[in-house]
Amino acid sequence: MTNVTDQDRVVIFDTTLRDGEQSPGATMTHAEKLEIAELLDEMGVDIIEAGFPIASEGDFKAVSEIAERSKNSRICGLARANFADIDRCWEAVKHAEKNRIHTFIGTSPLHRAIPNLTQDEMADKIHETVSHARNLCENVQWSPMDATRTEWDYLCRVIEIAIKAGATTINIPDTVGYTAPVESADLIKRLIETVPGADEVVFATHCHNDLGMATANSLAAVAGGARQIECTINGLGERAGNTALEEVVMALRTRNDIMPWYTGIDTTKIMHISRRVATVAGFPVQFNKAIVGKNAFAHESGIHQDGMLKNRENFEIMRPEDIGLSGTSLPLGKHSGRAALRDKLETLGYEVGDNQLKDIFVRFKDLADRKKEVFDDDLIALMSVDDEADDHLQLVSMKVTCGTGGQAESTVELEVDGKDVIATEHGDGPVDATFKAIRAIYPNTARLQLYQVHAVTEGTDAQATVSVRLEEDGMIATGQSANTDTVVASAKAYIHALNRLIMRREKAGPGADTREISYKDLT
Amino acid sequence: MTNVTDQDRVVIFDTTLRDGEQSPGATMTHAEKLEIAELLDEMGVDIIEAGFPIASEGDFKAVSEIAERSKNSRICGLARANFADIDRCWEAVKHAEKNRIHTFIGTSPLHRAIPNLTQDEMADKIHETVSHARNLCENVQWSPMDATRTEWDYLCRVIEIAIKAGATTINIPDTVGYTAPVESADLIKRLIETVPGADEVVFATHCHNDLGMATANSLAAVAGGARQIECTINGLGERAGNTALEEVVMALRTRNDIMPWYTGIDTTKIMHISRRVATVAGFPVQFNKAIVGKNAFAHESGIHQDGMLKNRENFEIMRPEDIGLSGTSLPLGKHSGRAALRDKLETLGYEVGDNQLKDIFVRFKDLADRKKEVFDDDLIALMSVDDEADDHLQLVSMKVTCGTGGQAESTVELEVDGKDVIATEHGDGPVDATFKAIRAIYPNTARLQLYQVHAVTEGTDAQATVSVRLEEDGMIATGQSANTDTVVASAKAYIHALNRLIMRREKAGPGADTREISYKDLT
Repeated sequence: MTNVTDQDRVVIFDTTLRDGEQSPGATMTHAEKLEIAELLDEMGVDIIEAGFPIASEGDFKAVSEIAERSKNSRICGLARANFADIDRCWEAVKHAEKNRIHTFIGTSPLHRAIPNLTQDEMADKIHETVSHARNLCENVQWSPMDATRTEWDYLCRVIEIAIKAGATTINIPDTVGYTAPVESADLIKRLIETVPGADEVVFATHCHNDLGMATANSLAAVAGGARQIECTINGLGERAGNTALEEVVMALRTRNDIMPWYTGIDTTKIMHISRRVATVAGFPVQFNKAIVGKNAFAHESGIHQDGMLKNRENFEIMRPEDIGLSGTSLPLGKHSGRAALRDKLETLGYEVGDNQLKDIFVRFKDLADRKKEVFDDDLIALMSVDDEADDHLQLVSMKVTCGTGGQAESTVELEVDGKDVIATEHGDGPVDATFKAIRAIYPNTARLQLYQVHAVTEGTDAQATVSVRLEEDGMIATGQSANTDTVVASAKAYIHALNRLIMRREKAGPGADTREISYKDLT
Repeated sequence: MTNVTDQDRVVIFDTTLRDGEQSPGATMTHAEKLEIAELLDEMGVDIIEAGFPIASEGDFKAVSEIAERSKNSRICGLARANFADIDRCWEAVKHAEKNRIHTFIGTSPLHRAIPNLTQDEMADKIHETVSHARNLCENVQWSPMDATRTEWDYLCRVIEIAIKAGATTINIPDTVGYTAPVESADLIKRLIETVPGADEVVFATHCHNDLGMATANSLAAVAGGARQIECTINGLGERAGNTALEEVVMALRTRNDIMPWYTGIDTTKIMHISRRVATVAGFPVQFNKAIVGKNAFAHESGIHQDGMLKNRENFEIMRPEDIGLSGTSLPLGKHSGRAALRDKLETLGYEVGDNQLKDIFVRFKDLADRKKEVFDDDLIALMSVDDEADDHLQLVSMKVTCGTGGQAESTVELEVDGKDVIATEHGDGPVDATFKAIRAIYPNTARLQLYQVHAVTEGTDAQATVSVRLEEDGMIATGQSANTDTVVASAKAYIHALNRLIMRREKAGPGADTREISYKDLT
């Protein structure tokens, strides 16, 4: 990291909370957004795109609160090309010490046709809106959506206008995820060479992974002159997702010999945030996912690893500990004390206060009584289940009978706003019967969108993490629970998701948490 | 596809059954290997690397049988640089009408050091072994493992030797998955320009996805002059996996404007084989995986899709039906007849005989009685569970009680080689109790490596597919089952895996199905 000039520094712009969260089913709660933002801030992300403030009251509140709490990261909000969007965005991001307004418009013939604007009319609109944003905020990013299908001369013209109007970053999105590295590098290079004033701003690249090349395209854009990469944790995002933060960061680090640029990311925080995003979004990472997949570092032993160790001069090797996978992962047991638990949690990236530790220790002991060995993943699952203080529904007890001899029967006892209610129902399998019993106690029309079970560690006494995603009137809520009893975990995850739906309904009034603006228009 | 010369044709070399299958935990049964090979053949894969014949009796048998049954694909086997390996490989692949021997050796200083060979000694070895292979088979592929870290002059020298000795394809593996597109293109280009005789052979690229760039690196190698891409379905493979077949094929097809090469793959078969490989290997595909992820085509509607439809002259759009995702996916119900079931199965890529249809129809009716609507994914799950004719253990009945009030209890009745045996056990949750009861009936030391539940369709009456992976004395067996009752599905999947373990033990004798050769030495 010595001998580098500013020109070697690549800015990491994370949009997990905006472009990632708009991915179908990945909706996060307010608390989850704050947690992820804090982790992004801690890991050294330069700019956090925290949401789209005008889209809903919830988005506005999330961006505002993330802005207020930010420590080192610059907080950015998204705005379309109109004053109302930009004003609302500023209202949210202004609370941050470092802030940014990101405004965009589709510049291709197709996108000009929808609002029926001529080239000149759209150029005027860009000038007006970027100037307006810059009058509010000294840091403005502008994106010509569908840049790759915009006439070359016109693209250069509107970028020049945006720069003159005060944009400090120009982002070139690969809206449909269809570019290739050579094309990606060439586009940025030609733009920087052609557009007057290009040397005074930062060019950014925003890629999607539809053809599996988002990482390579982003790095190629950097080779072409871009100095900001827009990305998300785990490549979360619509369709095949966005560029994965962990891939571009680790590629730059590992192959610094041929890609002589660096980022400010503390890579040892990667694994922890990857797991948290996978859990809160309900988007599991596949075993063979680069960098953060369960198998990514499996079989690195033997000849390959060996060879790499002996050839460190050639390139930096990628080690599990570089991304925060602890090398020595000794399990805890029923005799482990509070200090050992706290130590282990700290190694895993969790800082807990004394009161929280007390709580967790009770749950840990309960688990350790049932399992001989409590592994890192067990603890992560334990930590993933957030507290249930405000919950309307709480599980008191349940009893399930199932098998091959007919329908399953489930008797569930819930505390509903302080009162105990019991119901018994039959269903196709223990989970169906249990969910029916919960619905009998608390009638609702929520549709089960996703039901997933992961055994987080090996062995038949493995703790299972269950994720449940419910949808009701356009509102989506995800619930999780971890338990050695899959059926109990299923009930708890369902109740967890229901509690979240109820909370959202109450806080926002009917329909208010459903976004009023379709995200389909966005990059 | 008109106006193309041979120089525009890229050969697809699939190594799902060799490099993919060696991925930790992805072991496939003999029957599964045959099925996947048939699907690869049908989809137009040019070369199938079916296994590593000398590694085990099982590998030899699989390669031989795949060779015998091959229709259009060339069948290839792997061999190290010695006569025994090469002879054994030939014994297996010779049954195919079109065959290939793939032999390799590590050429970097590190790899020369292990057998303690000088440059000259290794050069002689390469000449001898490639000549020997060519004497047996007219189609020989040679790979210098760790090519990127081999001295340039020596690399050129050994490639020239291999070509002179009769190699018809030279494969350049990116052994550690660390290259980048510019480097990948440049390496192939320089080799073709430098090595005498290079114009008479096909150069191949074999990439790994450790930095998330395998697809881009493979396509860059093609731009550099390679005309064979080595890949696997879903990018299955060790660590972060190999290049994904579906990504390179769809990228070449979609961006033919800037990558003017084509393959012989029938892309409409992609989705079906992707699902089958995910199921048999027990490697689920993440939602946001390019091309084959559940979300890959979600939200393609709206402005993006629209724009693409209007701009088809710019580039071919990628549509769900191009990869075999049926656009109109009407569910079947309890009133659907046998013809409707057969039609639907054919749409999904399954051709079934009359007897098989009878069987499936019974299972379909049973499912339709429990579920209002039977979706495509339900049928795929139904088809994924293979027949249980030879099974030692069969589930007769089971009854499970679980909940919050203490340990779960499971009573399981199995037919063990024709005799009914019952056991009741307690455990941490219904699954643990059930597995304990099965172990009480049929004592074994198999370790549970993986336990996964997927709800294959939406709704609380969803069918759950459970995958169980067991390991005993180095032997690995995976079992699956689909049922609306998760606990019953778990029992059946466990029994399925146990039956496979027993079958393997019997067929191979103790330890014989465990590979004798460490795969760690391979590319």
